[in-house]
Amino acid sequence: MSAKRSTDTGRDSVAVLGLGPMGRALAGAFVAAGHPTTVWNRSAGKADELVARGATLAADPAEAAEAADLIVVCVLDYDAVQDILDGAADRLAGRTVVNLTADTPARARSMAEWAAKRDAAYLDGAIMTPTITIGGDDAVVLYSGPQDVYDAARPALAALGGTATFLGEDPGRAAAYDVALLDLFWTTVYGYMHAIALARTEGVTAEDLLPYSAGIVALVNSVMTPEYVRQIDERRFDPDTDSAIRSQAATLRHIVQAGRDRGLDVGMQEAALRLVAQVIAEGHGDSGFERVIEAIERPAPAAG
Amino acid sequence: MSAKRSTDTGRDSVAVLGLGPMGRALAGAFVAAGHPTTVWNRSAGKADELVARGATLAADPAEAAEAADLIVVCVLDYDAVQDILDGAADRLAGRTVVNLTADTPARARSMAEWAAKRDAAYLDGAIMTPTITIGGDDAVVLYSGPQDVYDAARPALAALGGTATFLGEDPGRAAAYDVALLDLFWTTVYGYMHAIALARTEGVTAEDLLPYSAGIVALVNSVMTPEYVRQIDERRFDPDTDSAIRSQAATLRHIVQAGRDRGLDVGMQEAALRLVAQVIAEGHGDSGFERVIEAIERPAPAAG
Ligand SMILES: NC(=O)c1ccc[n+]([C@@H]2O[C@H](COP(=O)([O-])OP(=O)(O)OC[C@H]3O[C@@H](n4cnc5c(N)ncnc54)[C@H](OP(=O)(O)O)[C@@H]3O)[C@@H](O)[C@H]2O)c1
Ligand SMILES: NC(=O)c1ccc[n+]([C@@H]2O[C@H](COP(=O)([O-])OP(=O)(O)OC[C@H]3O[C@@H](n4cnc5c(N)ncnc54)[C@H](OP(=O)(O)O)[C@@H]3O)[C@@H](O)[C@H]2O)c1
Repeated sequence: MSAKRSTDTGRDSVAVLGLGPMGRALAGAFVAAGHPTTVWNRSAGKADELVARGATLAADPAEAAEAADLIVVCVLDYDAVQDILDGAADRLAGRTVVNLTADTPARARSMAEWAAKRDAAYLDGAIMTPTITIGGDDAVVLYSGPQDVYDAARPALAALGGTATFLGEDPGRAAAYDVALLDLFWTTVYGYMHAIALARTEGVTAEDLLPYSAGIVALVNSVMTPEYVRQIDERRFDPDTDSAIRSQAATLRHIVQAGRDRGLDVGMQEAALRLVAQVIAEGHGDSGFERVIEAIERPAPAAG
Repeated sequence: MSAKRSTDTGRDSVAVLGLGPMGRALAGAFVAAGHPTTVWNRSAGKADELVARGATLAADPAEAAEAADLIVVCVLDYDAVQDILDGAADRLAGRTVVNLTADTPARARSMAEWAAKRDAAYLDGAIMTPTITIGGDDAVVLYSGPQDVYDAARPALAALGGTATFLGEDPGRAAAYDVALLDLFWTTVYGYMHAIALARTEGVTAEDLLPYSAGIVALVNSVMTPEYVRQIDERRFDPDTDSAIRSQAATLRHIVQAGRDRGLDVGMQEAALRLVAQVIAEGHGDSGFERVIEAIERPAPAAG
């Protein structure tokens, strides 16, 4: 990063492009850590509080980029990132773009190639925790890209707080972690919403379930142990388990049936049942649910 | 329960029908607590260890029922329960059947009616924790059915350990909790298996994800608070949230796209995306995910 744009205090100047809930949290953390911070958002009115705290509002992405060593982008998706960076493309040379927008690993890699053509340094990042954590101890942010770019950006990125982890030089790696962990997260959340909808049809409230909900979810910790993940990574399968696929299939059929009895959407549960049925059809009904990974990897023809 | 079948020590005699992993755990706990315990299983060889510890093996369900005050049934599903109890139907009068098999609330209610016609007392129960917890402090078992039947069975059921909760007289209520909580549990587990499959396509292992997996799942605790569930139960919706449905839709599209890019089954994720798309189509893209419950309750015509 060019020293000329850094301040007397030696803190890199930062631009934050995109002021949704997360962009605002990021910009707020840079301001709080004493970085000269320029902000921009597509639609107006999102920067007011940040400007009151000392941030500078830019008229467009190019102006924001011009003012900064480190250009942080955090918007809805990479289509939005592309729209924004296209407008600043001639200001990126010699600067560092840190893309904290979530998207697929493939798109992270093509964004890195695009940035390289503009002579910009590029880091791809994934924020794993909610807005409220940013700047505090609980923030978790993953990065991937060139090691030297990460090392140079690190002091400024420390403003985001918590734990920053560098995952290596493949620019798609942070997105790979991100998309997998978001898969786990949202499946869990929508499963919870479905559980509440299902309970409600029987006059059982979310409050009634509350004493059990967290405990039930915490049971998955038993498959989040070093031993169990090693078994999975080595594609070893429990031949005979305490909770065989066949028994789970019965459970899933009850869930689907109970939902259908009451006219609920059971699309997620039917999709899970198809995976389990495939494992049974392949002759592994006595094994554990790690076989489901194989069914996911080799979708049945009907599932397209 | 008839005193004549109770022992000198005053402990009720118990029959356990079904010796799958859970049936064996239950029978083991009754034996350990000093209950005269008779066991039976459809296929042979599952009782050996229990018999060595003092249980009596019955030749058929009728013989097992004959020997017991309390008849505990724990098998694959209620079709299996029906098969078993049909064979003991003329021995059930004056005895108590405790059905710890999981199935739908509707089937629990019809099983209660069936038992009433045989003059049997009937409790429906749901075991919320794994086999390893049975007899120890961590067991969680829910019961529903007539209060007096529960009160009479309670001392014997205490052998199963942990927390027993009586949910009321509707025999379907334990199953209603059970099916909803299992929905949450299995959706989470299959979401985890999918996350691992997705990560694997990018060379990221389950072990790589491990430092983040439990933390990501624990984030759902933020929607398992008394305040949040009250909001849900009162059908109040966040009008403008830190994680709007529109942003989640983008995330789900990335997950589906990343999975498709690598030829994975993405049935569960597509089903979740359909729900979210429905919320957006109904004009609530800025609200929080509690709107998903409504989409589940009013499936889109196409989703059938
Ligand atoms: N919120 C969280 O708790 C959280 C947690 C972890 C990661 N993230 C990630 O952080 C990123 C940002 O999330 P967010 O919560 O701030 O909200 P978001 O709804 O994902 O993104 C909103 C931002 O994107 C902008 N935007 C959308 N389309 C655009 C376009 N075509 N051109 C320019 N700007 C566009 C919006 O501008 P307008 O204001 O003009 O609409 C707004 O600034 C996402 O990738 C999200 O997955 C968020
Ligand atoms: N395992 C757990 O951790 C756990 C936790 C909570 C709740 N539960 C619930 O406990 C119940 C039993 O589960 P489980 O783990 O022991 O294994 P399971 O695989 O669900 O059930 C196996 C038992 O069902 C019997 N069975 C199946 N079909 C039958 C039929 N038509 N007639 C007679 N018996 C039949 C089997 O007999 P054979 O040996 O002859 O096949 C075996 O005894 C289920 O409802 C399950 O949801 C289990």
